[in-house]
Amino acid sequence: MDNSKKLLYLGPRGTYSDIAVDVAKKILPFLEEFEPVPVFNINEIIVNVDKNPDCVAVVPVENSIEGLVRETVDKIVRTENYIRVFQEVIVPVANCLISNSGDITKVRKIISHPQPLAQCNNYIHSLEKKLGLDIELIPSTSTSKAISELGDFADDAAAIGNEKAAALYGKKIVEKNINDEPDNKTRFLCIGRTYPSASGNDRTSIAFSTLNQPGALVSVLNVLKDCGLNMSCIDSRPSKKNLGEYMFYVDIDGHVEDENVKNAIELIKPMTTFYRLIGSYPKFQ
Amino acid sequence: MDNSKKLLYLGPRGTYSDIAVDVAKKILPFLEEFEPVPVFNINEIIVNVDKNPDCVAVVPVENSIEGLVRETVDKIVRTENYIRVFQEVIVPVANCLISNSGDITKVRKIISHPQPLAQCNNYIHSLEKKLGLDIELIPSTSTSKAISELGDFADDAAAIGNEKAAALYGKKIVEKNINDEPDNKTRFLCIGRTYPSASGNDRTSIAFSTLNQPGALVSVLNVLKDCGLNMSCIDSRPSKKNLGEYMFYVDIDGHVEDENVKNAIELIKPMTTFYRLIGSYPKFQ
Repeated sequence: MDNSKKLLYLGPRGTYSDIAVDVAKKILPFLEEFEPVPVFNINEIIVNVDKNPDCVAVVPVENSIEGLVRETVDKIVRTENYIRVFQEVIVPVANCLISNSGDITKVRKIISHPQPLAQCNNYIHSLEKKLGLDIELIPSTSTSKAISELGDFADDAAAIGNEKAAALYGKKIVEKNINDEPDNKTRFLCIGRTYPSASGNDRTSIAFSTLNQPGALVSVLNVLKDCGLNMSCIDSRPSKKNLGEYMFYVDIDGHVEDENVKNAIELIKPMTTFYRLIGSYPKFQ
Repeated sequence: MDNSKKLLYLGPRGTYSDIAVDVAKKILPFLEEFEPVPVFNINEIIVNVDKNPDCVAVVPVENSIEGLVRETVDKIVRTENYIRVFQEVIVPVANCLISNSGDITKVRKIISHPQPLAQCNNYIHSLEKKLGLDIELIPSTSTSKAISELGDFADDAAAIGNEKAAALYGKKIVEKNINDEPDNKTRFLCIGRTYPSASGNDRTSIAFSTLNQPGALVSVLNVLKDCGLNMSCIDSRPSKKNLGEYMFYVDIDGHVEDENVKNAIELIKPMTTFYRLIGSYPKFQ
């Protein structure tokens, strides 16, 4: 990779990560100076941001149906440089049925990533009933890839994905908002070597391990509670050594420059065997 | 499915789930009366146990490297009948390189599930150095399937999997214990309508949701701490409704018949918006 400024995201073009990049640019106009580059896995994105001071990235961290994106958290925590989150972005997962013709009566097969295929299960069953036939489901490695490849299929094929990808690849929307759970959202993190000051409406993400002793985690969480801090996310990841040994990933309201957050962290650090600040950054509004 | 007694597990034959079935039978001889049936996804296994009183199953719940098996927890918690865990089983993930000839110098491609391919990454790189060439990696849907299909390839193909599968399909072990992390283990749960009494060395698994209020989770965890209960596992799963709304999955030492566990649960229940006992069962020894 050369030395110019790059903004990496999970490609190809037209993914929900690509949409998150558009949203991030509206919030942080300085991102316009960065060239968007689609990359095909999260590990490679984070390794590149870690190595290259001119790289920033937008990576998915949590989905309201699936939960934490483990690959993102596991990798950010293990970066060698001071990579931090500088902004969060939330994107609604508004899946559409997309085809070459836009004609719903022609649909006999649906191509997409296994996750949207599962998340639109009820819709697909009701479509089968309506058309009085079985629809073949064909897995693909990304929603955008499925849409871009629709041209390789006859007009009986449809894909599941977003409106941006449909427009990008010149395809027609058959039906909008086909998710079984209407309130499906994905949270993304902007990461790099940018450390924003307190904005007054921030979130702080930390990761830590405790001694494997009864009550060790609760003692840390009690510090947060006693400091009046609201915890918006908690998840545990295995230490990767023994079953039952964990690293905890916690999001709290506030910024490390805020007095109560600063105090809580000073109290927590000596209670941990590993501690890492992942970032203090403005909440998505 | 007919009405005879079935023991469902994640197939095909020769998977680590199949090995877990062997281990479970040694601990609980009554399982010999059940016919082992390989099933190809966790959802289908749990749905069948839920519907059919004559079905039990062995399902993976946690791996020391990858963490909680989300599909298992999400599905057990949503069963309609009184499905409970009645035993846990821990199986070491002892991956081997396996081939038709057993000759390491012939290996040019390795076939396996993407997880073992990733978990044996360092070994594969050192093998490439030793042989002075690049090895092609071919993803498969299961370790056993890869081994069973080795016959379809020339003698330059090897698979990654366990010794049981190698013996089952008449293949040779090229090298044992090739995992990058030596202490890789998977924990399995035996589920059904069997409710064992306290054995003196038990684990209790519960799932609950709290009001989305600051300190709600900590209050529950403090009850466990105040009752002197050790927590061996905590994980959060999205409520599947809103970002930041969780169901918590907690393992504690002890049995629901033990006085301190019974008291703790009576105190916890009114603090939750959802509560479910997943099981009180003997720990694996």
